Amino acid sequence: MSRFWSATVRALQPYVPGEQPKLPNLVKLNTNENPYGPSPLALEALRGEINDSLRLYPDPESTRLREAIAAFFGKLAPNQIFIGNGSDEVLAHAFLALLKHDLPILFPDITYSFYPVYCRLYDIEYQTVPLDDNFALRVADYSRPNGGIIFPNPNAPTGIALPLAGIEALLKANPDAVVIVDEAYIDFGGESAVALVNQYPNLLVVHTFSKSRSLAGLRVGFAVGHVDLIDALQRVKNSFNSYPLDRLASVGATAAIEDREWFERTRQAVIRTRTALTRDLESLGFEVLPSAANFVFARHPKHDAEKSALALRQRGIIVRHFKLPRIEQFLRITVGTDEQCAALVAALREILKA
Amino acid sequence: MSRFWSATVRALQPYVPGEQPKLPNLVKLNTNENPYGPSPLALEALRGEINDSLRLYPDPESTRLREAIAAFFGKLAPNQIFIGNGSDEVLAHAFLALLKHDLPILFPDITYSFYPVYCRLYDIEYQTVPLDDNFALRVADYSRPNGGIIFPNPNAPTGIALPLAGIEALLKANPDAVVIVDEAYIDFGGESAVALVNQYPNLLVVHTFSKSRSLAGLRVGFAVGHVDLIDALQRVKNSFNSYPLDRLASVGATAAIEDREWFERTRQAVIRTRTALTRDLESLGFEVLPSAANFVFARHPKHDAEKSALALRQRGIIVRHFKLPRIEQFLRITVGTDEQCAALVAALREILKA
Repeated sequence: MSRFWSATVRALQPYVPGEQPKLPNLVKLNTNENPYGPSPLALEALRGEINDSLRLYPDPESTRLREAIAAFFGKLAPNQIFIGNGSDEVLAHAFLALLKHDLPILFPDITYSFYPVYCRLYDIEYQTVPLDDNFALRVADYSRPNGGIIFPNPNAPTGIALPLAGIEALLKANPDAVVIVDEAYIDFGGESAVALVNQYPNLLVVHTFSKSRSLAGLRVGFAVGHVDLIDALQRVKNSFNSYPLDRLASVGATAAIEDREWFERTRQAVIRTRTALTRDLESLGFEVLPSAANFVFARHPKHDAEKSALALRQRGIIVRHFKLPRIEQFLRITVGTDEQCAALVAALREILKA
Repeated sequence: MSRFWSATVRALQPYVPGEQPKLPNLVKLNTNENPYGPSPLALEALRGEINDSLRLYPDPESTRLREAIAAFFGKLAPNQIFIGNGSDEVLAHAFLALLKHDLPILFPDITYSFYPVYCRLYDIEYQTVPLDDNFALRVADYSRPNGGIIFPNPNAPTGIALPLAGIEALLKANPDAVVIVDEAYIDFGGESAVALVNQYPNLLVVHTFSKSRSLAGLRVGFAVGHVDLIDALQRVKNSFNSYPLDRLASVGATAAIEDREWFERTRQAVIRTRTALTRDLESLGFEVLPSAANFVFARHPKHDAEKSALALRQRGIIVRHFKLPRIEQFLRITVGTDEQCAALVAALREILKA
């Protein structure tokens, strides 16, 4: 702490991202990266952009990428899309632009741990709403005065998806508040709320290129919603950093979203591996929550999660463990390749025997 | 405006960046890009990074890049360096972390027009301090109670540099306030205050890769200062977006700062062209402020600046004109290649004759 720090910076409790260790030969199943590489067409497009034009600023509005995203979903105009430097930046702007009101905002007690961090950054009051005993979101619990609602769907780190009917019920019950659905993991099994944005002016849906598009290394996220909500995000962005997306990220993301075949093939592969991994973990005695994401959330009735995570680590396998109420006995395991998941299961089998 | 907007977003007055037109064959002298391409070693390093590793998150701390920057300057440790997604993001975080106090902050009346925008975003009071009649910053005018001081050096859009002795006087006169020196253009002729960071714990120096490193398309900026100031920026960054720099930007910027030869050669070329351009503009009757940047700021005693900018535009040449008090008769002209500057001068000669 220093006398030069603002009161804001003194009060912050920064987010701690999953570890990015620089060790070779690691089975890295801790930050929900895609085990498959990005679309070969995206890599080709990136190669084509490595030239002297990098001396020039990018298009501050990422026009081509917005058009490509609108075309991917259909029935959307480019001005219903907001682009950011990863979905974390999109979420940050959304908290300040759309969730900072007099009433506290609501989000689940077990959820993406960045949400309370944003609240502290922007001085936003919040209340957490407990998930039910099976870790499902109960829509009825959100029918109280609030300044906005946000949750991931599928939820993180549980992987459990809320059906579209539940989201629609939330939107109808809260017509005066913005409802933000954070769909980082939606392409691995959930129903996207993008289908509802033209009917509900209070709905903002946030996506990322880091998971199903396999471009965590490029930092691209976006939001879809009514043009009034997108305008609010644009105003914040243009008061913060006019050029959030570099030329390479724009071009790579555009090619990635245009390659539907690669997207379909790789996400189906992840879904298949998840099914097998779930079955294998269950055969070892784990309880595995029903996942619609590219990770599973599992606990063993007889083995301590933190100890298991440590034992895995000693075998070169990294998973994520959250030392938090209600979920401290769970491991969050990214769905890797079949080989990586087999290595994980074999290691767990050894660890449980010991 | 929408009922969903926060009070913050309602009050914003977003920055308007220089135009990025998508026309071919334009002589684009409006956003101070480098006329030369980036280091060939940077392009090579970028090509080497286009592979499946893009599926993985980048190093959230940009460790390699910080080490390379520390090595470039010497006498600095990597933890005295903060990396951001362009220097605009670095500045934004610095306003919130280090300039938000009870007293108003100070900056020149004529300066980078993003500063008041940040103040509105973060609800920071400010007072502008008039430059003198020759558009120079008078250090004595900053000796009054303040919550911090920020200015570009060389100043934008004037191009006039404050000598290092002036900066040291400012630091000594304001030991309890953070002084931020925004050195976006320093490599084209000014004396960098990085030389002072180990002596003054209240000094933060901000740099960009967009100008002298010719990588505006990659979005990389950084700050150098005492570790306590850098820690404050890290806390904000980790409460906003843990991974601001993508894998490609990190690698490209690292290779660029390691290529000292390209850096020297291209910045000397820009300086030479600036000298010639200044002489040519003066021969047309322009008054040209003494520039230490990669642009010149010039006015003609008999010709209206806005009309001249429009006439240039009709000839496919874009320069920047600010419709602001004291400077509305100036044109800000980026130093391009010799050919681009010759085209500009020829066009102006025609326009002045007409």
